[in-house]
Amino acid sequence: MPKVRVHNVTVSLDGFAAGPRQRLEEPFGDNVEGLHDWMVAAMRDRAEGKTGIDVEQIERSEENIGATIMGRNMFGPQRGPWQDESWRGYWGENPPYHHDVFVQTHHLRPAIPMEGGTTFHFTDEPIETVLARAFEAAGGRDVRIGGGAATVQQYLRARLIDELHLVVVPLLVGSGERLLDNVAEGIDGYRVSELISSATATHARLVRR
Amino acid sequence: MPKVRVHNVTVSLDGFAAGPRQRLEEPFGDNVEGLHDWMVAAMRDRAEGKTGIDVEQIERSEENIGATIMGRNMFGPQRGPWQDESWRGYWGENPPYHHDVFVQTHHLRPAIPMEGGTTFHFTDEPIETVLARAFEAAGGRDVRIGGGAATVQQYLRARLIDELHLVVVPLLVGSGERLLDNVAEGIDGYRVSELISSATATHARLVRR
Repeated sequence: MPKVRVHNVTVSLDGFAAGPRQRLEEPFGDNVEGLHDWMVAAMRDRAEGKTGIDVEQIERSEENIGATIMGRNMFGPQRGPWQDESWRGYWGENPPYHHDVFVQTHHLRPAIPMEGGTTFHFTDEPIETVLARAFEAAGGRDVRIGGGAATVQQYLRARLIDELHLVVVPLLVGSGERLLDNVAEGIDGYRVSELISSATATHARLVRR
Repeated sequence: MPKVRVHNVTVSLDGFAAGPRQRLEEPFGDNVEGLHDWMVAAMRDRAEGKTGIDVEQIERSEENIGATIMGRNMFGPQRGPWQDESWRGYWGENPPYHHDVFVQTHHLRPAIPMEGGTTFHFTDEPIETVLARAFEAAGGRDVRIGGGAATVQQYLRARLIDELHLVVVPLLVGSGERLLDNVAEGIDGYRVSELISSATATHARLVRR
């Protein structure tokens, strides 16, 4: 059975996935300097042919993913109706997805085919419907929930996530958007199956009970 | 200079130091089964002469402490005025402190000298005054803030804590009392100086910037 997976979601020691004041210049908001350093270092290590706990986690995150779902805030910094349609995501003309990406938003616009096989679809359908479309697009492979925190919470509350890879880094953010918040009883459906640390990050894996 | 230290404060992966419904039979509330397993195992290992990351952390927590400060909820499950004075803490007649313990409460009662050198003092003075008394009692050694979460937060907000050893365990609690909550800008005064994991727990150390 194909799965719904979340990977590389990085939170500070106090649990924040983003700081206050998320915006174009600072997509993750303030006070989050260094939050994703582990990932940058792991990608550099991988490019240099090095291995290690962090590199292995990055590699697991990319295996067997056939479609991605993300929230509108992960697609771009705009809020409310699109002023124009020039924004095509944070990732340039050849985004690193190479498959169908479903962007959840109340503000629909035509699908955007990008280079390299990525197509952004905009949808305001219920998450169950979005997920069904994503599974169909994935053609037997898994679906990844890309983020941000609010979108992950939405799927956690509905207990639709099979595997959530959470990364805790030694930073204090203090305020902003907590990942494991607004999840209510949804969290009862999960347990931590794995806890492993590198020198710079602690990786936890949440799976369904 | 003697320090203000906090040790072994254990939180779930989602940041809770206690679950909902704290009470006599369940001092840490519901949904926290296993929260302190790492500590029980480490103390057993130490008793058997074994070493390891968790044992080492427990040993560090006990070094050079001359006095303890705790909140009233850590001393006992009662809320509001004392109904009688029969309650003498959770720890039996010979508590594992062996020094002066200052219990912060609006409901004063006479000091209780216990066996083994522990004396419980009850105080409603400002935290700066309580801390000054604790340092005096400690006679040059460090003062430990014993807990619970609300008391740790009080001292964090005032940036009076020099070192906070936080333990993250792979459990999800979902609701209750978060340790790093209600800290506001106080948290800006701290950084994470250390992150080290055993098979069962991740130890982080917060120090002042």
